[in-house]
Amino acid sequence: MKPLAVSLGDPAGVGPELIGEAWTRRNAERLPPFFVCGGATVLREAANARGLKISVERIASPAEAEAAFARSLPVLGDGDGPYRPGEPDADGARLALASLEQSTALARGGEAAGIVTGPIAKALLATVGFAFPGQTEFVADACGVAAEDAVMMVAGPSLKTVPLTVHVPLAEVPGLLSAELIVRRGRIVAAALRGDFGIARPRVAICGLNPHAGESGRMGREEIEIIVPAIAALRAEGVDATGPHPADTLFAPHLRGSYDVAIAMYHDQALVPLKALDFDQGVNVTLGLPIVRTSPDHGTAFAIAGKRQARAEAMIAAIRLAGEIAARRAAA
Amino acid sequence: MKPLAVSLGDPAGVGPELIGEAWTRRNAERLPPFFVCGGATVLREAANARGLKISVERIASPAEAEAAFARSLPVLGDGDGPYRPGEPDADGARLALASLEQSTALARGGEAAGIVTGPIAKALLATVGFAFPGQTEFVADACGVAAEDAVMMVAGPSLKTVPLTVHVPLAEVPGLLSAELIVRRGRIVAAALRGDFGIARPRVAICGLNPHAGESGRMGREEIEIIVPAIAALRAEGVDATGPHPADTLFAPHLRGSYDVAIAMYHDQALVPLKALDFDQGVNVTLGLPIVRTSPDHGTAFAIAGKRQARAEAMIAAIRLAGEIAARRAAA
Repeated sequence: MKPLAVSLGDPAGVGPELIGEAWTRRNAERLPPFFVCGGATVLREAANARGLKISVERIASPAEAEAAFARSLPVLGDGDGPYRPGEPDADGARLALASLEQSTALARGGEAAGIVTGPIAKALLATVGFAFPGQTEFVADACGVAAEDAVMMVAGPSLKTVPLTVHVPLAEVPGLLSAELIVRRGRIVAAALRGDFGIARPRVAICGLNPHAGESGRMGREEIEIIVPAIAALRAEGVDATGPHPADTLFAPHLRGSYDVAIAMYHDQALVPLKALDFDQGVNVTLGLPIVRTSPDHGTAFAIAGKRQARAEAMIAAIRLAGEIAARRAAA
Repeated sequence: MKPLAVSLGDPAGVGPELIGEAWTRRNAERLPPFFVCGGATVLREAANARGLKISVERIASPAEAEAAFARSLPVLGDGDGPYRPGEPDADGARLALASLEQSTALARGGEAAGIVTGPIAKALLATVGFAFPGQTEFVADACGVAAEDAVMMVAGPSLKTVPLTVHVPLAEVPGLLSAELIVRRGRIVAAALRGDFGIARPRVAICGLNPHAGESGRMGREEIEIIVPAIAALRAEGVDATGPHPADTLFAPHLRGSYDVAIAMYHDQALVPLKALDFDQGVNVTLGLPIVRTSPDHGTAFAIAGKRQARAEAMIAAIRLAGEIAARRAAA
């Protein structure tokens, strides 16, 4: 298998130190070979600040990554800058963007098995010309996939959840839901769980929107008018979709084993249970893309960057999961 | 301290068997003395079906409860009926209602230290003349408290949460929020945590409505227009209110110790994390009433009634918590 390409993320955030820590734990955590796009100085200094014993090695092409990975953290490309944790600026945003662009291009071109994207500061990136709401939309666009078909799933040890709507005001959520949207996303989710996660017949639990999933229309009609028909349509296509499930009980311990993924109607319905249960280990996976893409499900955490406080579990889990998906695709 | 009055709940549900189990575990769980209003036959047969060794004893007044409690499950009143688990009917609903009315009246009159209400079937109760959305509203009305000032809190070992809106369609939630509502409820919550829970200066975390608490208005303005001013008003009154907090991270393990109670904007925002973390142990507590009232945070569970499957932890926790609050009020 080809190595994974890891993008640096914002150099002033926790990304660089967590990449370094993941590399030092590569054997214990059985991580697949990876290299970082740019930021050799940033990575070296971030690792020093964290007290990690690490050597950073420049490589000339992804093909050199695997051999280098055994002895050092491989870095491809000359993009670099100073390490100033907690002090984001436009130069850092440009470096993060260049790293994201390079890693995506290498995965697109088949030189990398997939990408793991470090955390960026979206507002800052926008000031240097980044025209996407987030990295997911950027990667989808680079792959020629419509943004609505690049599906964000967050995966932790306890749960996998997919928010059907994401960064929109809660008041807009009911108006954004449609049976078509649920069917389209449900189809992508089911296909990805089969192909990328090796689940032969994925069980897809679909949440209601309203309290108690509306209680037969007594508290809202979206379940009756939108969600129930969508589930019927998915089932007619052979997807093992169930619901609408009352969200308050769906994530209780005795029900978590009854489905492989939960599709939630809005951001917090998916992310409240995920973070309550799996905070440090959540991995953001983009389903429905021709390339493999994962990301630790946390932000730049500027406030604790360089302070040895950020936990590397999500970064490690993101790298491991990208490797697993890539291996499954390579074997298919 | 006076004994607690426990209402039977729907006789076809899991209430009666769980009351029986709580009584058998009274010493190990250090439960305060309680008696049940009505349902002697139901309780005896439900206990038999569950395989519990139990004797049911009729008492003539609450004053007899404490002595009887040591040797048997005390039952006050003649209301009764057959035990038909999983087969709710109007007679059963009438029995449940009579039990609720009697227990509430005894607490109002000072003969009981508080009430623990067994689970009822609201739709069925409505068919026999019950004119309230739920037991909370009934009890508030019986106490002469406006329904909006009887505040539902759900308490578990990991979390305490208060949903600001409850059984309404999600689409109506934004329109129901106001700074006045948040302040009014926040005040009641803070006072109850002081008086009923013995927390000298309760830390009240207030959730945002939108993803990431709106990100400074980029995803919704309710935080800026409603929630921030409400928090300022509460703080001006001396309440240690903080927020608006992004709900997705507020319930993560490393933040759960930073507040005593979280006020959520809607049903699932409060109940998803509570049930994900504390499913079997959630207690519904009504704050702001002159009487003590708790309830296990689960329904009648007709499907498993009489089958030895229902867990008694929430009923036991509800009885214990009612006793603790009553003791604190008695000592005040």
